[in-house]
Amino acid sequence: MKDVHVGVVGLGNVGSGTLAILHKNCEQIGQKLGFQLRVTAVCSRSVHGLSLPDVPADALRTTDWRELVAHPRVDVVAELVGGTGVARELIESAIGHGKSIVTANKELMALEGADIWDRAIKAGINLAMEASVAGGIPIHAVLREGISGDRIVALAGILNGTSNYILTEMESRGDSFDAVLAEAQALGYAEADPSADVDGFDARSKLAILSALAFGERITPSDIFVEGIRRITAQDFDYAHQLGHTIRLVCSARQTEQGLILSVRPALIPQSTILAGVKGAYNAVWVKGQFGADTFYYGRGAGPNPTGVAVVSDLMRVAREIRCGSPERVSPFAHERLGEYRPVSVTLQHRPYYLRFRVDDRPGIIAELAGILASRHIGLEAVLQLPCDTKHDLPFVITVESTTEQAIREATAEMSQLSFLREPPLALPMEPPL
Amino acid sequence: MKDVHVGVVGLGNVGSGTLAILHKNCEQIGQKLGFQLRVTAVCSRSVHGLSLPDVPADALRTTDWRELVAHPRVDVVAELVGGTGVARELIESAIGHGKSIVTANKELMALEGADIWDRAIKAGINLAMEASVAGGIPIHAVLREGISGDRIVALAGILNGTSNYILTEMESRGDSFDAVLAEAQALGYAEADPSADVDGFDARSKLAILSALAFGERITPSDIFVEGIRRITAQDFDYAHQLGHTIRLVCSARQTEQGLILSVRPALIPQSTILAGVKGAYNAVWVKGQFGADTFYYGRGAGPNPTGVAVVSDLMRVAREIRCGSPERVSPFAHERLGEYRPVSVTLQHRPYYLRFRVDDRPGIIAELAGILASRHIGLEAVLQLPCDTKHDLPFVITVESTTEQAIREATAEMSQLSFLREPPLALPMEPPL
Repeated sequence: MKDVHVGVVGLGNVGSGTLAILHKNCEQIGQKLGFQLRVTAVCSRSVHGLSLPDVPADALRTTDWRELVAHPRVDVVAELVGGTGVARELIESAIGHGKSIVTANKELMALEGADIWDRAIKAGINLAMEASVAGGIPIHAVLREGISGDRIVALAGILNGTSNYILTEMESRGDSFDAVLAEAQALGYAEADPSADVDGFDARSKLAILSALAFGERITPSDIFVEGIRRITAQDFDYAHQLGHTIRLVCSARQTEQGLILSVRPALIPQSTILAGVKGAYNAVWVKGQFGADTFYYGRGAGPNPTGVAVVSDLMRVAREIRCGSPERVSPFAHERLGEYRPVSVTLQHRPYYLRFRVDDRPGIIAELAGILASRHIGLEAVLQLPCDTKHDLPFVITVESTTEQAIREATAEMSQLSFLREPPLALPMEPPL
Repeated sequence: MKDVHVGVVGLGNVGSGTLAILHKNCEQIGQKLGFQLRVTAVCSRSVHGLSLPDVPADALRTTDWRELVAHPRVDVVAELVGGTGVARELIESAIGHGKSIVTANKELMALEGADIWDRAIKAGINLAMEASVAGGIPIHAVLREGISGDRIVALAGILNGTSNYILTEMESRGDSFDAVLAEAQALGYAEADPSADVDGFDARSKLAILSALAFGERITPSDIFVEGIRRITAQDFDYAHQLGHTIRLVCSARQTEQGLILSVRPALIPQSTILAGVKGAYNAVWVKGQFGADTFYYGRGAGPNPTGVAVVSDLMRVAREIRCGSPERVSPFAHERLGEYRPVSVTLQHRPYYLRFRVDDRPGIIAELAGILASRHIGLEAVLQLPCDTKHDLPFVITVESTTEQAIREATAEMSQLSFLREPPLALPMEPPL
């Protein structure tokens, strides 16, 4: 049978993981496909300085991605460069050459996925992007095939391994955000500039892709409210536990009567839910369908091998399609043109909230805070104060009944003017059990 | 665009769930596919007595499945009859008519899946069976597509919702097996004859299908060791908790140096693992790949709607293929002909074990039991006895270091001869953290 030939651009972590799997698992891949996947060309700026033990001796090694894309024997291009510069050009060029593409590029697909898909469909080529979100979890295959018959009404996920590692370490050791971040940086788990991870931007790109796939809408990062984890303290975990909850950076997309509410933010989730069991650098996605009810998917979020499995699995699927001709395709970014899933502001969201204060203690504080809540018709649920040996910079918590994000924002803005507060209140939504 | 026409045989729970989803979700299904899935014919013995609000008025309603299969407008047949009688005939007939098949039939696919697949491939038709295992979890799509590039080395699952419900109720309430079973039967969660569920046979069929898909071998139920949950007591949960574990009916398939070891049996699993969080009627599958490391999938195991989603999703995939011609297919039951995964006896398995005794207490019992273990070179790990107000029928537990199932069987057989034992020892393997 005719084999399918692969060109790999980008030989960093994901690229080398992909090549290692294609090489070491070639017998089983060949058995599953009924033909071979052959690496015909590889490209990287430093290709001539690399030993590349997993690349066949006769494969083209080039520093020029244009040469690889134009190579007559390359059937499918794996874009593992990342970012929105060269990667965009490369994908456009591959579409122009009528070559199918497998990509691990979350930034580009989050920003321009729908447009790129439209052009790919016009060109009759396939585009696969399992590796762009939650590398080790085959959530694209699940949404595209496994539960395609369902109508998704909500999804929630933990999509950034670094921030989840930091939060779960803070939780288990009682250390501060700064201390755990510094350690994670020393261990290489967090970047020197940790903003993309701890401020939620990486997770936001992933949620944009996932929710576009789940709801079939053109959702871009700017549709998604984002808030990072820098303000979370070890004491917040103590209070959350007291409430039977934990704290995670939750990526959430929910269809409501108002529209689709999308956010990436730290939130309290019940400890009894399976999402609360996601620790360390693992990722997870929970999906709620109108018919199939809850399903939950869990695995490593990143790493050369887990992400490499996603790339290789995509290459296998695309290769099968290349061999059986070009089927008609429908963009996974836009199956839904019924206008059901209009992104709306997170301020419309209804939730119970956790409000954590740091105050210089004096009589009347609760009364004043409760007065502000009452004036906005926000129902106070509980006041919690764990034992503490100081009257200065004293943390305590008020939980309130379900209200809108808008009301909470107005209330906390008013509270921030109060002289006894050391910092503006920290407001975290309390997510319902999954 | 040309629509694809579906014939549904079997209008029980799964059949009616399937029809409801096809009807209620038809707009989104059409958007995702780019064409419509139309129900052209339905068949059941009682079809003329059913109101069938989700079936189009002009669809054929027949009590004769042969008429449905032969119907010139039926492109794909959904076999939702179950069992190995009519279903086998029906599938053979559909293959003979060159019609693709979607099936929810675990018994038939567990017993004859590989042969049926071979015939389907020769006939150039497609066979989809997502609904045959863990209805709500798209584990077939995951193994077939999502992580197809990986090389699976182990899987473990909770695949029978009824037994998991019984175990988790026993655990949370401290009630006996008999009491919880009786209640489950009264509530309709368990059958009048509960054997298929509580003795592990239902789970064994599912594990046969899953492991065949994961390892690409012809694995049938007879390759799998099975033991049910009838001997588990509420006290076993107390002891397991003392050891940081819980007890579940674990379906396990692991590649070892000796070969592939397959079993369905109650086992101790660490409470810290995500598998231990699977409660009630939920199912879960944990997969370990050589490259992608751990992934975990969770959802409802059964029910008209979750299983209906699996059937409809399969129908969508098969319909896409029908429209783009017949690709070459490779049986998912036999991608692996390299002889790597030879099923071997569970007696070769190495594990730590939990041994629970019920004795009439007298001095020297521990010495006698420990002597039998020592004579077989089985290392004793711990002796546990929770507070108990009787000397007769006294439960206590010995845990032993990793040894073979064979050694444990011989030791417990010898122990069973001892006069102070009220019943043969209960031996449960202690599974490693996932």
